[in-house]
Amino acid sequence: MSAAREEHWMRAAIVAARQGIAAGQSPFGCVIVSGEAPLATAHNQVWASGDPTAHAEITAIRLAAQRSGDISLAGCELYSTCEPCPMCMAAIHWARVDRVVYGAAIADAAAAGFHELTLPAARLLELGRSPVRLEAGCLAAECRALFGEWQAAGKSAAY
Amino acid sequence: MSAAREEHWMRAAIVAARQGIAAGQSPFGCVIVSGEAPLATAHNQVWASGDPTAHAEITAIRLAAQRSGDISLAGCELYSTCEPCPMCMAAIHWARVDRVVYGAAIADAAAAGFHELTLPAARLLELGRSPVRLEAGCLAAECRALFGEWQAAGKSAAY
Repeated sequence: MSAAREEHWMRAAIVAARQGIAAGQSPFGCVIVSGEAPLATAHNQVWASGDPTAHAEITAIRLAAQRSGDISLAGCELYSTCEPCPMCMAAIHWARVDRVVYGAAIADAAAAGFHELTLPAARLLELGRSPVRLEAGCLAAECRALFGEWQAAGKSAAY
Repeated sequence: MSAAREEHWMRAAIVAARQGIAAGQSPFGCVIVSGEAPLATAHNQVWASGDPTAHAEITAIRLAAQRSGDISLAGCELYSTCEPCPMCMAAIHWARVDRVVYGAAIADAAAAGFHELTLPAARLLELGRSPVRLEAGCLAAECRALFGEWQAAGKSAAY
């Protein structure tokens, strides 16, 4: 996998996160890629939907499964601006996504005020014996900067 | 908390699981209780909805948040026929549910063919430093028997 290709998809996830910030949502974006095409793109929708499970990754998985007509997303990659929390990481496992690439860390989200479980995605995969592959730190500085952009916008609170 | 009270709510979760089995869904049921009233009752809906995240607990949380008009379910208890998987356990944390009571274990679901992460709910809470309280083994034999009832019904596959 080339760095340029990964950065291309991560930039799409960053665009989604910025759309979320503009819409008064939390600063997280996600893209699920099938081959060389985006299957689903989403930002966090917790405030918009009133659903505490509507993180960017969960929202993208639901959309991707609906579009593909299959609860298995085997063969897909998932790009997320932030390290998946245990809920999202386990949802990615259930959806059988092959590979995850992320930017900022769970600790960055916790520092911004989110009520994070302090369990790294890599550790969850290891303890749970999951086959999902994980790659950290793609465009990490830009992804981390989303938290500052969200705070400056002042349109929604952490939860 | 009295055992009779806990068994009362667990029996409601078992009824939900059996409704799911009859409807060709997977054998998991959940009830979220606010005070002495059921706020949301659900069975697993993964096959019905084509949504790999539609476990019983996630489905019940979405419904409870919608009904209460609040992404926080602080003060509520959640009864689940099976130990919550890491996705559901983390969703319960995000929803700020106070306390979880469950029956069968993740290992029972894995033995029935489900693609479980091998991470106990208690260990996730400990590693993640979650305040959610957890109680295992309520009506465990009846909850475990749901897997056999589901296999005998032969209406849906594990995933």
